[in-house]
Amino acid sequence: MTDIPKDHPRYESLITRERIVEGVNIGITSKQGLVAQGRGEAFDYMIGEKTTKSAAIAERAAVANILLADNAIISVNGNTAALVPDLMAALADVTGARLEVNLFHRSDARVHKIIDHLKAHGSGVVLGGKGDKRLDLSHDRAIVDEEGIFSADVVLVPLEDGDRCQKLVEMGKTVITIDLNPLSRTALTANITIVDNVTRALKNMIQFTKDMKTQNRDSLQEIVDSFNNDVTISDALYTMQENLKNKAEEKGLTCV
Amino acid sequence: MTDIPKDHPRYESLITRERIVEGVNIGITSKQGLVAQGRGEAFDYMIGEKTTKSAAIAERAAVANILLADNAIISVNGNTAALVPDLMAALADVTGARLEVNLFHRSDARVHKIIDHLKAHGSGVVLGGKGDKRLDLSHDRAIVDEEGIFSADVVLVPLEDGDRCQKLVEMGKTVITIDLNPLSRTALTANITIVDNVTRALKNMIQFTKDMKTQNRDSLQEIVDSFNNDVTISDALYTMQENLKNKAEEKGLTCV
Repeated sequence: MTDIPKDHPRYESLITRERIVEGVNIGITSKQGLVAQGRGEAFDYMIGEKTTKSAAIAERAAVANILLADNAIISVNGNTAALVPDLMAALADVTGARLEVNLFHRSDARVHKIIDHLKAHGSGVVLGGKGDKRLDLSHDRAIVDEEGIFSADVVLVPLEDGDRCQKLVEMGKTVITIDLNPLSRTALTANITIVDNVTRALKNMIQFTKDMKTQNRDSLQEIVDSFNNDVTISDALYTMQENLKNKAEEKGLTCV
Repeated sequence: MTDIPKDHPRYESLITRERIVEGVNIGITSKQGLVAQGRGEAFDYMIGEKTTKSAAIAERAAVANILLADNAIISVNGNTAALVPDLMAALADVTGARLEVNLFHRSDARVHKIIDHLKAHGSGVVLGGKGDKRLDLSHDRAIVDEEGIFSADVVLVPLEDGDRCQKLVEMGKTVITIDLNPLSRTALTANITIVDNVTRALKNMIQFTKDMKTQNRDSLQEIVDSFNNDVTISDALYTMQENLKNKAEEKGLTCV
């Protein structure tokens, strides 16, 4: 890893970058994924680099959906594999959902490298290696496992491609995304949009699952039914505008 | 390059990513630079993916400063070298400024590869290969050429590290930056902050130079003197807030 001086004011952010660069170096993250990571960093800055109240509500609704599902799948790409392999494994473990590797820049070698990487970080079964079904899409994210994403009723797709998100919703699945851009096609198409950093979101969801696991199905269903995704997205947009205003004021600037 | 289907709604953005990935593949862009590119993409989305009126004013003020300078240097890093080598060469050519390669993740091999790359794209002299002076910084961006950045009176630093920007301002230089995050340390520290995409900014600056080259020094000085960077930054922040509101309304969402 490049030597980052500890006195650098963006030390934390630079170290996270180093981690995802390491993902590229070991062949699990695509170079394009690094650019996507950067987009996320910028939107995280806008949202204030913390979980908002409405994001926490979306995370609880997501957990309720996963706990109620017959076949919940957590989709893993090269970025989440590099950044949060342990949290993906832990969330699958605590909820009973299964992981499936699904890549925009797919090769069989990369799929299997990621499966091995997830297993090394505590995952049990990891789907995605078969690729025995196709969604109606013109890129590699079309390739899915029949027993996994293809037949799932609930799919968690952190850091998603908008195209595939739309297709999964059209197939009648409940789609949960973690996306820091509240106006991305993914964010606007998903049933539940968690506008939060993937690390914070997964940590919260693991904790919420522990809290909610003992609730009966009716009470979980109530959480699902009372959730309104438009309110979540609107709140994220409002928070970003407020943060811009506040950051400007802190710096002694006022909006003209 | 990965095959991106033409019907993908983010085709344009994905192709730009491919270009910068190509920069990594040929050894001129660092992997960390890809993350920085992503951050830029997100902020460009916020600013509306076009040059604002206040950014154009900043670009004119930047050109006036460069035309009035005794020794104007345009600093080149791995991202600008990959994305806009021809525009950097053209701006240097039309203004009489010189290019200097300066890298956060520096190696002599990379510096010389970038110098060759710039020359292949039409640049004449490119500084940065000597590295015979140091700025007071704890990372590689400290290494500069004595006849270049070290003694320059005006420095254009597109896509800059905030640390070095501050140091250059402390040394009494006029620092011009191109930075899509109006609240970055670089943006707040520079004398002229161009909140614009680097491709659009450089194209505009080349055109403005052609228009302004025949103006006398007094009239250029007037442009310099009447420029107010706080107004520019405030306007960028205001534009971002407005764009968030407008994008939300377009999508049928209103801020809560």
